[in-house]
This record gives sequence, C-alpha cells and structure tokens, in this order.
Amino acid sequence: MTRRRDIVLGAGALAAGAGVVGALGSTRKPKQHAATPTEIGAPNINRGIKQFRMATSWPKDFPGLGVMPTRFADAVREMSGGTLEVKVYAAGELVGALECFNATSTGAADMYHAAEYYWQGVSPGFNFFTAVPMGMTAIELNGWIDWGGGQAMWEELSARSNIIAFQAGNTGHQTGGWFKFKLTGLEDLQGLRMRMPGLGGRVLAELGATPVLLPGGEIYQALQSGAIDATEWVGPWNDLALGFYREAPNYYSPGFHEPGAGLAVGVNLDRWAELTPSEQAIIRHACRSANDQSLGEYTVMNGRALETLRRRHGIEPQLMPDEILRAVGAKADEIVGDIAQSDPLVTQIFDSYIASRNQSARWTEISEGAYIRARTLSRG
Amino acid sequence: MTRRRDIVLGAGALAAGAGVVGALGSTRKPKQHAATPTEIGAPNINRGIKQFRMATSWPKDFPGLGVMPTRFADAVREMSGGTLEVKVYAAGELVGALECFNATSTGAADMYHAAEYYWQGVSPGFNFFTAVPMGMTAIELNGWIDWGGGQAMWEELSARSNIIAFQAGNTGHQTGGWFKFKLTGLEDLQGLRMRMPGLGGRVLAELGATPVLLPGGEIYQALQSGAIDATEWVGPWNDLALGFYREAPNYYSPGFHEPGAGLAVGVNLDRWAELTPSEQAIIRHACRSANDQSLGEYTVMNGRALETLRRRHGIEPQLMPDEILRAVGAKADEIVGDIAQSDPLVTQIFDSYIASRNQSARWTEISEGAYIRARTLSRG
Repeated sequence: MTRRRDIVLGAGALAAGAGVVGALGSTRKPKQHAATPTEIGAPNINRGIKQFRMATSWPKDFPGLGVMPTRFADAVREMSGGTLEVKVYAAGELVGALECFNATSTGAADMYHAAEYYWQGVSPGFNFFTAVPMGMTAIELNGWIDWGGGQAMWEELSARSNIIAFQAGNTGHQTGGWFKFKLTGLEDLQGLRMRMPGLGGRVLAELGATPVLLPGGEIYQALQSGAIDATEWVGPWNDLALGFYREAPNYYSPGFHEPGAGLAVGVNLDRWAELTPSEQAIIRHACRSANDQSLGEYTVMNGRALETLRRRHGIEPQLMPDEILRAVGAKADEIVGDIAQSDPLVTQIFDSYIASRNQSARWTEISEGAYIRARTLSRG
Repeated sequence: MTRRRDIVLGAGALAAGAGVVGALGSTRKPKQHAATPTEIGAPNINRGIKQFRMATSWPKDFPGLGVMPTRFADAVREMSGGTLEVKVYAAGELVGALECFNATSTGAADMYHAAEYYWQGVSPGFNFFTAVPMGMTAIELNGWIDWGGGQAMWEELSARSNIIAFQAGNTGHQTGGWFKFKLTGLEDLQGLRMRMPGLGGRVLAELGATPVLLPGGEIYQALQSGAIDATEWVGPWNDLALGFYREAPNYYSPGFHEPGAGLAVGVNLDRWAELTPSEQAIIRHACRSANDQSLGEYTVMNGRALETLRRRHGIEPQLMPDEILRAVGAKADEIVGDIAQSDPLVTQIFDSYIASRNQSARWTEISEGAYIRARTLSRG
C-alpha cells in the first residue's frame, strides 16, 4: 500500500504507465533469483561478455512502453555480436517501478528505461526531459535535446546521481481524456474530479478542478462508481484496452498535459566508463533507434485504435472549448516556472526549454500545424 | 547542360537538393582518384575491414541533407570499432546526383544516401518513400514504413534493382514558398510561373499555373529578372541562405507538395549479403539514428531561421487562402493515383500508403493538430 502510494504520488501523468504497473501487481517484491547482484552483476569476463541489468518502470511487454526496452536490448545484442547483453526487468522484478533511478545510481541496477519525470523528487529539472503542460511536441523535444543544448544540461543534472541518460522513446501526444459529460466552458471544471497526476493535475487544480491520483487499474472502477467524473490516460491505443469509453464516452482533445512524453535510458556512470568508445556508440545509437521507432509506432497504433473507437464503439472525439484551452495556457507556464526555482541548473534548464519551445513553436505552427489543418480542410 | 537538365527533370521538389547540386557545380566529372573501384571497391580483407563507397545526391556538407550521410558513416565506424568503413562521396565525386541508384544497383557504388523519388523514372512507386502532395507527415511516414507494411513493399520494389533501402533522414515539412505578390484566391494561380518540380508541379499545372524547373542556384536570378513569380525550396533554414525574401517577400505556408520528405540509405544487395547479422544490424540502426536526428535538427534550425527572417528581414509568414488549399487537395490524390497504375506492386504501395495516411491523419488532426492550435491560442 505504501509502495503503491509512492508510485502514484511520485509520478507524472505517464504514471499512466507507473499506475498500470501498480494495478497489474508488478510492484511485488523482487524475485531473489533475478535480483541478486552477485549472480549477474559484474561483467562476465571469462566469456568476454559485458552484462547489464536494466530496471524498467513498465509491466512486461506492456504495449508501447513495455516493449521499447526489449527492442533496445535486442539492438544492443545484435550490433555488438552478443558481447553486450542487456537483461530487461519489468517493474518489480529487480526494483519497483519508481526505484529504477536510485538503483542505477547506486549500482544495484546498471541501467534503466523509464520516464525522467518520475525522478522529479530528486530534481524538478527532470520534468523537462519528459513533458510539461503546454510544452514541446515530441519532435520539438528531440530537437531541443539534440540541437538546442538540452543533452549537455541533462548530463550535468544526471551526473549528480552518477548517471548518464539519453532519449530512448516517445509516446507522442497524449489525449485530453474521457469525461462523463460534455464540456462547454471553464465553469465545467469547477469541482470536476479528474484523474490526472503531476503538473497537469496542478494546472487543473488552479482552474477549480480536483485532480485525483489513481493507478491505472483502479480508474475504470472509479468512473463506474462515480468517484471520478473524468480521466486522462495515454492515447487511443492504450486507452481502448481499458474500456473508458463505456463509462465516460466524451473523448476530448487535445491533451495539454503531455504533448509528447519522452522516455529515456539511464546508465550508471561507472559502468558507462568501463565501456569502449565503440560500445558506448552502440548504446547511444540503440537509444536513438528506439526513439525513432516509438513515435511512428504510437502514431500508427493510435490511428488504428481511434478507428476502432469510432466504428465499433461510436466514439466521436470532441474538441476542448477554447475558453478552457486559453485558461490552461495562461496557468501552465506559471506552474512550470514555479518548479524551476529550486536550483540554478534547473532554472537554466527551464530558461533554455522555454526559449527553444517558443522558437520551435512558431515554426511548428506554420509547418505541421498549418499543413494538418489544410489536409483536413481538403478532405472536406 | 544535359546532365543538369536530367537532374532537374528527374527530381522531385527536393530537387531542392539536387538543384543545388547542379548550381554548386558538384555535378562535375568524377575525380579519378576517388572513383575507381579497383582502388577502394573490394573489402580490405587483409586488415579485416569492409569498405563501402557511398554515393550521395548532396553537395558536400550541404546543411542538413549533406551532413546526414557523414553522420551515418560516423555511426557505422564507431559502432563497428572501425571494421566497417563508409566513404561518403558528394554528388559528382563518384557519380552524378541522380545516378546514385543505378550505380548502387550495378555495384559501381556500394550504397547511396538520397531521396527515393529521384528514382521515379525506375518506378513511380519510389515517390511514396519520400513524399507525395497532401501525403503523410514525417512521423506518419515513419509509422507507415515501420509499422504499416511499407518496409516490406519497399524492399520488394528495390530488390528488382538489387538494392535494399532504409529510412535515414527526413527534412520535415517543406514550406509553401516565396511569392512576389499576395495570394487572395485560386485566380492568382492562373498563369503563375512558379518553380516547383515533380508531382507538386503537376498539381499546380492542373490549377492553371505554369510550373518551372530550375536548379537551386538559378532560382534567385529568375526571381530577380521576373522570369518566375514564385518559388518553393525547402524550409526557412535552407531558404534563408539563398535570399529569396529580397525578391519575393510573401512567404506562404503550408506547403502541400512535400509534407515530410523522407531520405534513404540504399545498399547493393550483394554487398548486403556479405555482411554478418551484426554488421547488418549496425547499418540498420545507424539509419534509424540518422532518421531520428534529422527531424529534430530541421525543426530547431527552421525555428531559428524563421526568427531571423522575422526580426532581421521583416518577413511575416502568411497562410495560403483556403480556396487554394481545397483545390490542391481535390487534385492531389487524383494525380498521385495516376502514377500508381504502372504495375501491381505500385498499385499495392499506393493503396497501402493512402489507407495508412487516412487512418493516421484522423489521429494527427486531434493530437498534434489540435495541440498546436491550442498552444497558439493560449499564447494569445
């Protein structure tokens, strides 16, 4: 119970993922046979093979999130000809979903695959490497981290905990959520009980709603019993599986809370330093490959699930009223700015992130934004 | 002159790239010291090193396009510990910009980095792996190729020419272009002389305009002399450098012709078959890594250039009138469909592409599209 609460409180909205973890029971105690460092901890020097225990925040083979670490491990094994072995542990197998960072920091794990905002208790600066309300889209985030100075600040932040981290996945845009009733304007948020963790929930609270923290597996029942009026989750692909459309059939877009949630691989810096430049390159590019694959996958899978929701379940997505979007936008930067005052590095990350977002946003508006609108228009 | 015309006629709008090639003079005759297969063609078995000559369609170190092949080659060298060596040749050094495919097919080159629609003379099916008017965005294209069946059909098409190809870059959205006068509606297209090659130009022609084929280096002069009224090119990053804003300061978005132009690495199938599974994996993932990096790079660099255009040159991007966008949309699928009747495989590619585009587009509308609009709205 304590552990579950930790998970829910500690996580951002991809507590989506971590929430599901709790619900699916994978926060059970570590299995001894899998977790003992003596068994698999050190490089297997005799065989010339370097082994890595990767802790993850995801249930085993959870669609999208849970498959990315396996894809990464496969790429590393294939490219190294088997000399680098990454053994992937689902949440709870080696350590709990939200303990991956600490475990990697101390060396209890060698690496992790997770969402960086899970470590906001270590530093609020980690939020910027996953997503913040009204922040960057997935492509903009890629751009800032790779070409806008983000990676260097990220490495500085992570090095404090003896970790180096890289982008290794993105869920793309996360939708606005499922509501029991239609939204007409700001007054509908007064007293609204909505499942939304993290910074998004704080924005909602500022606008009069009551954000509720619930792990994934408890959301459906809470909707059914009337304990909550609405919930966000991930997107059509992951949402469809949980059946929210039956209890809260008003599906709203866009989401404002996670416009493109970045995922990461973090590596213990001592283990990193043991690697040759070639081995480091394999890990870096395997991260990029996982990043590249995930965004397209979420796009195709969300498109398919949306069609199923429409055709089989009669769900027609609706647009959030402009009044709500304007109010959310006005609060978002203020709340995100609040968390950035904790130390000079976090302030520097915040300033860099916001400047890059603003600059990229003007381009995104007249490129992707204008094009998507034009294509819709031309399809009648 | 013949060669330059070939380039211009053969290429799509990224003839952007190929056009520049002609303009920058890199269609000069191959240097003998670099091009002779006897010198560097076969694997260097003595040193245990496998060497690959990569022909490209880009001028050396051309921003964006010209840097991607080098980035790919660096990744391959680093990950293989130097046992795989890719030597990158700029357009004209080994073969001409549009001869990369034939050269790789025959073994005169081992691989290429280029845009697949340059090979539309071999089969119109190649267009779909770069971009078609009112087609997929970059992320949607990634999704279709990786998760919607695109890669298998691409491999079938390429295998006819003894090649296997992978995505290895994307320019992102290409803008609508630079016009000498303001656009108010469809009547402005009547008689408009606009530089736009490929399928986009065919759509323009259907709407009463006169598409003009010009290599990149001749566009500015043609605008200055009044030989053309408008031009498209790539996006702010590449456009700014050529100074079009001085002669045609009306900058319109969105572009309809290349909503996300994919770039590719193609490998001679005999050379591919010589590789171990580990070496093949290194090449595949280096392609994904290049793909991952390029889209973020274009996003950040276009954002910066747009700010320069605004602040330093007073350029305020304008939106294409809806009347034009609707008319373009109505013609685009028709013209793209026309090219798809050439053989059963191309028809299959077309059907798959359009179905995937339509399905992903509905998701993109309510995710990225709705979010970008909301963010603009909230910024006032």
